[in-house]
Amino acid sequence: MKISSFLLIVGIGFISCKGPTSKDATPAKVAASNDQAVNDQLPSWNEGASKKAIVDFVKSTTTEGSTSFIPVADRIACFDNDGTLWSEQPMYFQLAFALDQVKAMAPEHPEWKNKQPFKSVLDNDIKTLMAGGEKSVAAVMMASHAGMTDEVYSASVKQWMATAVHPKTGKHYNEMVYQPMVELLQYLRSNGYKTFIVSGGGIDFMRAWAEEAYGIPPYQIVGSSGGYIYDAKDSNDVKLVKQATINFIDDKEGKPVGIIRHIGKRPVFTGGNSDGDYAMLQYTSTGAGPRFGMFVHHTDSIREVAYDRKSSIGKLSKGLDDAAHYKWLVVDMKSDWKKIYPYEK
Amino acid sequence: MKISSFLLIVGIGFISCKGPTSKDATPAKVAASNDQAVNDQLPSWNEGASKKAIVDFVKSTTTEGSTSFIPVADRIACFDNDGTLWSEQPMYFQLAFALDQVKAMAPEHPEWKNKQPFKSVLDNDIKTLMAGGEKSVAAVMMASHAGMTDEVYSASVKQWMATAVHPKTGKHYNEMVYQPMVELLQYLRSNGYKTFIVSGGGIDFMRAWAEEAYGIPPYQIVGSSGGYIYDAKDSNDVKLVKQATINFIDDKEGKPVGIIRHIGKRPVFTGGNSDGDYAMLQYTSTGAGPRFGMFVHHTDSIREVAYDRKSSIGKLSKGLDDAAHYKWLVVDMKSDWKKIYPYEK
Repeated sequence: MKISSFLLIVGIGFISCKGPTSKDATPAKVAASNDQAVNDQLPSWNEGASKKAIVDFVKSTTTEGSTSFIPVADRIACFDNDGTLWSEQPMYFQLAFALDQVKAMAPEHPEWKNKQPFKSVLDNDIKTLMAGGEKSVAAVMMASHAGMTDEVYSASVKQWMATAVHPKTGKHYNEMVYQPMVELLQYLRSNGYKTFIVSGGGIDFMRAWAEEAYGIPPYQIVGSSGGYIYDAKDSNDVKLVKQATINFIDDKEGKPVGIIRHIGKRPVFTGGNSDGDYAMLQYTSTGAGPRFGMFVHHTDSIREVAYDRKSSIGKLSKGLDDAAHYKWLVVDMKSDWKKIYPYEK
Repeated sequence: MKISSFLLIVGIGFISCKGPTSKDATPAKVAASNDQAVNDQLPSWNEGASKKAIVDFVKSTTTEGSTSFIPVADRIACFDNDGTLWSEQPMYFQLAFALDQVKAMAPEHPEWKNKQPFKSVLDNDIKTLMAGGEKSVAAVMMASHAGMTDEVYSASVKQWMATAVHPKTGKHYNEMVYQPMVELLQYLRSNGYKTFIVSGGGIDFMRAWAEEAYGIPPYQIVGSSGGYIYDAKDSNDVKLVKQATINFIDDKEGKPVGIIRHIGKRPVFTGGNSDGDYAMLQYTSTGAGPRFGMFVHHTDSIREVAYDRKSSIGKLSKGLDDAAHYKWLVVDMKSDWKKIYPYEK
């Protein structure tokens, strides 16, 4: 059961494709603008009801004397990552990393040439890999995410992020963050909110690059996690080694649990994009006092990918059904966002 | 095995005693002095080698151009709580809370009058309670720490903290923080360090009062934790309910694991007081670059309690043996600290 959930998270149902490469692009950097008052801190949002709802909420909750005022200590904002802060198509980017890692590790594993599921990864035969089901994807994930220290793992993610490119856009994966959401994170922080990631993705994977991409430090990231062993065999070089076991799945009803364990407070502002975020938004919106829940609705088939109720990745159905009841904002990417990626002109 | 560890953490081996009460004392408040340069931010530390070692480390790691310079993002400082930031004698304060909670809950549980281990708690018969061993203490802990929402639990801890007093000093428990350590936390923060608690104590227990006592917010507290169930039976009033199960024991080798899971970075500054903190200090001090590890050594039998190698609570033996090897500072409470508690003249 747990393995099953894990695999759904990391990428069953993706499509393999190839595209151009990018060499000189640089990752999106977060400008420090927290102590500057600027007229419009959300320039990539089109004027309209969505932008107004966000700005009205932030203004009312940060204005002393307002009946909606929220003390700084309670200004907790949580965001899903895949499909909410960056793209998740045609496969979760963490799975793209896992496939590339298997290829990079192949010289040390000559037996993989004839051993499934590794053979299919090395042959770029994604159809055969996926035919092996969850067990095959699990083997690929574990081979690429366990057996090394957190420090070695983090370096491998950073190395991959600096070199690998997305098959469709040709951009580095960390360039494919949503510019309007990066602005929203900064806008919230400049108004005293603490921003957290609460994602089904691997916590160590995100920590390797999220601070640079979003301005969110490692200790404000909640995610799925594997086991760790404290290795003190060499008492002058102790280390933590990632294990091929599952510790916590931070998805669906796991998200509120991850929030209370890690953050220790019910959020007042939460954003997601799929039914995997439903419980987190529900937990947020049923708390006392002013609350803000939002879904990023993938409506733009030209600039991004249009998908919702029937998608195997990022399915959003129950969330749309209940948005009105919980007063959740459904952001229409096509009409609400002036640009999607930072690199767009 | 896990239950056993848990019980060792929460209070096997305490002594029951009674003392005066305090009504008008107020909890230690943390003054915000982060943006003020002051001559001496550690006024409760006597001049000497210990204070000099701390100040020298902080100065060298925060001076641009110094070979020991540490970027702000890596300035992670972790501290044990019981016996390091506040007192832990004659029993862990969290166990004192559990005993008082059982008494407060007794009217709803008339059967407890004749049912062990609750009968012994209600009779103040600590000898009989402890004769029941770990199983008895576990029953008391679970009855007082599970079956309610995090919000109800937190309110009960706050209520207890505002009313209960320590049997020896007559002070509220949150007045029994160590003033020199509160100053050290503030001093580190004013130099760009992020301060975390990494304690074997219950994470939800600490979160209820630590922000006020130490200036450390809930999401910078790592501790032992129980299970949670997401209860959405009433879809307009969803909640998280604490379970009588153990999720994580943040003690001994669990501390480095708790750090990597929660913080995601190896600390550069770590303080503890017992062998339960040994692995955390070892993990800190074997990292590359400048590192600082310190033990608070309980040497003051007059102002506090003198204990180390043979104590059932806060045993410090291996840590003393290896302090020289790892260049750990051993703080002598008797000679290094001008005052221990904030309420001392």
